This record gives sequence, C-alpha cells and structure tokens, in this order.
Amino acid sequence: MENPVTVEVTRGQLVESRHRGMAVVIDAEGAIVFSAGDVDSGVFPRSACKAMQALPLVESGAADAYGFGNRELALACASHSGEPEHVATAAFMLKAAGRDASVLECGAHWSSHQSVLIDQVRTLEKPTALHNNCSGKHSGFVCTCCHTGDDPRGYAGFDHPLQEAIRAIMTDLTGAVLSRDNCGTDGCSIPTYAVPLTGLARGFGKLVTGKGLEPLRAAAARRLINACMAEPFYVAGTKRFCTKLMQVAPGRIFAKTGAEGVFCALLPDKGLSFAVKAEDGATRAAEAMIAALLARHFDADSEERAALMKLAHHGMTNWNGLSVGTIRTTDVLFA
Amino acid sequence: MENPVTVEVTRGQLVESRHRGMAVVIDAEGAIVFSAGDVDSGVFPRSACKAMQALPLVESGAADAYGFGNRELALACASHSGEPEHVATAAFMLKAAGRDASVLECGAHWSSHQSVLIDQVRTLEKPTALHNNCSGKHSGFVCTCCHTGDDPRGYAGFDHPLQEAIRAIMTDLTGAVLSRDNCGTDGCSIPTYAVPLTGLARGFGKLVTGKGLEPLRAAAARRLINACMAEPFYVAGTKRFCTKLMQVAPGRIFAKTGAEGVFCALLPDKGLSFAVKAEDGATRAAEAMIAALLARHFDADSEERAALMKLAHHGMTNWNGLSVGTIRTTDVLFA
Repeated sequence: MENPVTVEVTRGQLVESRHRGMAVVIDAEGAIVFSAGDVDSGVFPRSACKAMQALPLVESGAADAYGFGNRELALACASHSGEPEHVATAAFMLKAAGRDASVLECGAHWSSHQSVLIDQVRTLEKPTALHNNCSGKHSGFVCTCCHTGDDPRGYAGFDHPLQEAIRAIMTDLTGAVLSRDNCGTDGCSIPTYAVPLTGLARGFGKLVTGKGLEPLRAAAARRLINACMAEPFYVAGTKRFCTKLMQVAPGRIFAKTGAEGVFCALLPDKGLSFAVKAEDGATRAAEAMIAALLARHFDADSEERAALMKLAHHGMTNWNGLSVGTIRTTDVLFA
Repeated sequence: MENPVTVEVTRGQLVESRHRGMAVVIDAEGAIVFSAGDVDSGVFPRSACKAMQALPLVESGAADAYGFGNRELALACASHSGEPEHVATAAFMLKAAGRDASVLECGAHWSSHQSVLIDQVRTLEKPTALHNNCSGKHSGFVCTCCHTGDDPRGYAGFDHPLQEAIRAIMTDLTGAVLSRDNCGTDGCSIPTYAVPLTGLARGFGKLVTGKGLEPLRAAAARRLINACMAEPFYVAGTKRFCTKLMQVAPGRIFAKTGAEGVFCALLPDKGLSFAVKAEDGATRAAEAMIAALLARHFDADSEERAALMKLAHHGMTNWNGLSVGTIRTTDVLFA
C-alpha cells in the first residue's frame, strides 16, 4: 500500500521535498474515525509509548512509596532535553529509591537541542546518563524494581521481569502479540516492539477511557496522562514540540513524540486518540501531521485551532532570518 | 510519477523507515545510463552546485590574481564544517581582496557537526559569518566582484551582476531556463534555481568533459573539480560524507552534497556524472544512494567498491554503542 503525501516542504513557489505518512484517529469506542496510509503494518512506537512503559511505576505502588508528584511522573514518560530541571528530577527519583546515576542503563549523550547543548558544553566536562533524554523513564524503571524487590541490574534486558511486565502491558493496551520477532533495541537499549498504528492509537485511547482495563491499571494510566498534561515542560523541554502542543490547551491535550517520525496524542475530553508515523522517519513531518489532526477537533474559529494550525503550517527562515519556504500538511489529513 | 523506495532503515528484523528517491547517471555523451524515479521535475540543487557557482571566481581571473591554490578553490565549492582551517582559509581569501568578514552576506551559524560545535562553544563567544558552511563560496563571490570591479555589496541579490552571471552559467551547464519562477532563496541568502535532475547531472558532466563549453569555462571547471578532489577536507571536513567519498579514490571521485537530500558526483576518468535527490529531503538517504551508485562503477572485487558499499550500507548503534539496525539501499539502485 502506497502511503500518501501528507506533508510538503516548499521553497520559493515550488515544493522542494515531500513526506509520506500514515495516520489514524480512534474514538472512545475503539472505532477508526480517520485513517490515511497503511495503518495495519507494524511500527516501532519508540519513545512515543513511554507513558505505557511507565505504568508499572504507578501500578506497583512505587510512585506513591517514593512520594512522586506530577513532575516525577511526567519525567518518567518524557523524552526530555537534559535541562537542569530534568536532570535534577531524575537524580531525585533515583535518590528516593536509594540509588544514583550509576545504576542507569540508558547511556549518555549531549542534548539534541542546540541551545541546551551550548549550555551543557559551557558547564559540563561531558554529559552523564542523567542527561540522556530517557533518564526519567529509566529512573522510573529503577524505582519500580527497587520497590517490588527485583534486582534493577539488567532492567533494560528483554528477559528482565520489568520488561516482561511491560510486554504484558503493551499487549493488554494495543492488542498486539509481542515477541523477539517484532522486537528491536531502542536508543536507550530497552526493547521496542513493532505494533500496528491502529493498535498503538487504541492503546492510548484506553489510557484515558480505561475501557477493558483492570481498575488499578485504568487509574494508573489516567494519573500518568494527567501528570504529563499538568507538567508539559517535564515531558520534553524548552521550545520542544510536545511541550508546545500540550500548552495549547492545558489539561486537554496529551502528546508524545517518538524517534523515526512517530507521534501519539490524546484529546481526553473528546475520547479521541491519535497516532501518526512519517514513512521516512522525519520528525518535522510527524510534528506537522499530529498538529493538523489535533486542530481538526477544535472549533473552526477557536484559539486552540489557530495555535495548532500554526504548529502544523509554518514558515522557515534561513541564517539571515529571511523567509525561504514553508512546511504544510496536505489535504489528505483533512479528507 | 511515484518515486521508488531507494533506501531502507531497519531495526531488529524489520524495516522501520523508508526513503524514496530519484537518481540519474549520465555518460560523457550526455546520455542517460541509469535513472530511477522522476528525474525530469525541478529540484533545487542547493549547495550541491557550488562548483558551478564558483566558476566566475576562476573565469574572471580573480583566483589567479589573488594567488589562490587548491585549498581556496575547494573552499569556494564547499559546505564546510566551520573548522579552524576552513575559517582561516575564508579569512585569507577575503584579505587577499582587501576585505574582511563584514562584507559577507551569508549569515552566521554554529557548526552543524556536534564535535566541531563543542570545540566552537569552548573557544568562541558566538560564531561569525566565517563559520557559516558557505563562507568559502561567499568569499569567492566577494573576490570575484573585487577583481572585476563590481561593488560586492548586495552580491547575494537576484539582480546583482554576479548572480546574473551565475544564472547564465547554470543555464549553459544544465540547459534549464532560470527565472524568478523557479527561484528560491538558499540558506545563505543567494538565489537557488530548481532544475531537472537530468540537467543537473549533465551539467556536472560538462564540468569534466568540457563538451559544449567555451575553452575558458571548460578549463576553469576542470580546475575547480580537480581542486576539490585534491583537497577533500576543504570541501566538507572531519568525518563528513563528501570528504570520505572523495578519499575513497583520491583524484577519481568528486562528490558534493546539498541540503534537502541532494547529492551530485563525478567519476571523471569514466566520464560519468551522478545526481540524486531524496524525495523527503533526508541527508542519510542521499548519502546512501550516491555511495551505492558510485560503487557500481568500480570493479566487483575492488577496495574502492567495498569502501563505497560500506558508506552505502552501514550499521547504526545506540547511545550504549549497541547495534540496533542498518541503513541500506534497495535493489532499485542496482537494476
């Protein structure tokens, strides 16, 4: 199945580059409201499903035992920029469990965001695992193990009890069978499983509707989504797209990016869940797609819709600040 | 016309992302040897055509008047990383014409290459126009104007005599009509014109065959291409793809990248010219495509072919150095 062109990048009067993509919107009953492209093939959600992977932290009672509030829970679901607040919160989470950064298995990297990187270079010899964009998720993993009594060592491995628990959760939510066959290794070394985009969106829907979930899981899921919406800076960071999307309508939009052009989102009040994937893995395309799809579900003349469309369709400037072109979504997303 | 999938990005056992692209190879007579995808629509060559834009520097006599050798000529054709040698060479070129960086109209930016950026952040308050990846091209522009007696001010503008001269050169080489209709503004503020990929490749071919060109132009073109092949570090920089491609077979491969997934290359000894464009603008796809296409034209068991295929098909590791997937070209490029 050919995926349609969903995003165009223009320069002057012409289209310079085109992105194809898949997109699906699911209602509170789990029915497909909209779809474009091949939404049935497996897609690695990568970091987009961190809120699902954070469920054991809440379900196990670890989050309560360690006194975690919205910021810690949001960071457990985050791909953060490694700003000082993110790093301090991850360190706080580990300390609550009597551990430190030496237990983290995510590896270290400089921030991907230039202004943060420049600040880091001017204050650090080199980044630590706490600066890794996944350090909140990994700190949550460690806290879960410490609370349940599992040895956290090797927590990133396919056969560790924590990853077994996450597999069961992902199957419960997405309906997909997960095994070594559809498993890859993520940037932070934990397993990531290819699931159909429809299943991914349905799974996100269950996080807010709770439909078909055990009450403990339903409550934990809603608590994590609410925490992210309450503290959007802790889900991403300064000028980051997830943060900006959630700031458009505080408490009414949840959004989370994943590597290779994945984006998931929720409009909890409307019972709608969204998942998109740029065929080519481009972040700029996934961002435009998710913003345009979310915009459709706000009133035509609302501030929220205007703000979301500004995130979906925007100009590009060059090194001199001159306007050189635009990124815009195509009619496919408005069919 | 649908462009075929030319590059796949895998994770675990699965394809995670796919890039579509256009590619064309032209022989010394200007005939198409190979093509894939829509090679007749307009493509902005962006920085891939800097060697064409540098012709006035040599044709005007400016390069000789200012005593420029291979390094300065290579830098005039470069998208460099802003390493100290690049910055010093651009400053030297301007000084030869009695000017300094204040005349440059390219804007300033930090290096796009993380290790260079880190060095820059540790030694500079902020980058100057000399650090712009296009500073060599712009210094060449300024030198051309100073030598011919044109006022360099406004040299980046569509109506400046230098840009008029470059338009005439681009038409001579590519056969395409250039006007405001197919003109966009490049990252460094000069005009860039959409031309068919076939025309772009044919134009590059003329740079080494000289066919159909005035003798002065043919000699200038060959001198620029030879300068780039002699000093590949000055065309890009440390660990950069253009530099690595040219180092595979010193003096026998010319290669130049452009933004939004364009790559052009030459095998002068074989009279072959190459142009590719990733539909989605992805650099990783353009790099894989050009390396695979070049590889085809070396003996099956040669070191050069093996080295080029290693650039076309390579593993990807995560923050912990674990192998997580591959980038590979598809059979489309070997049809």
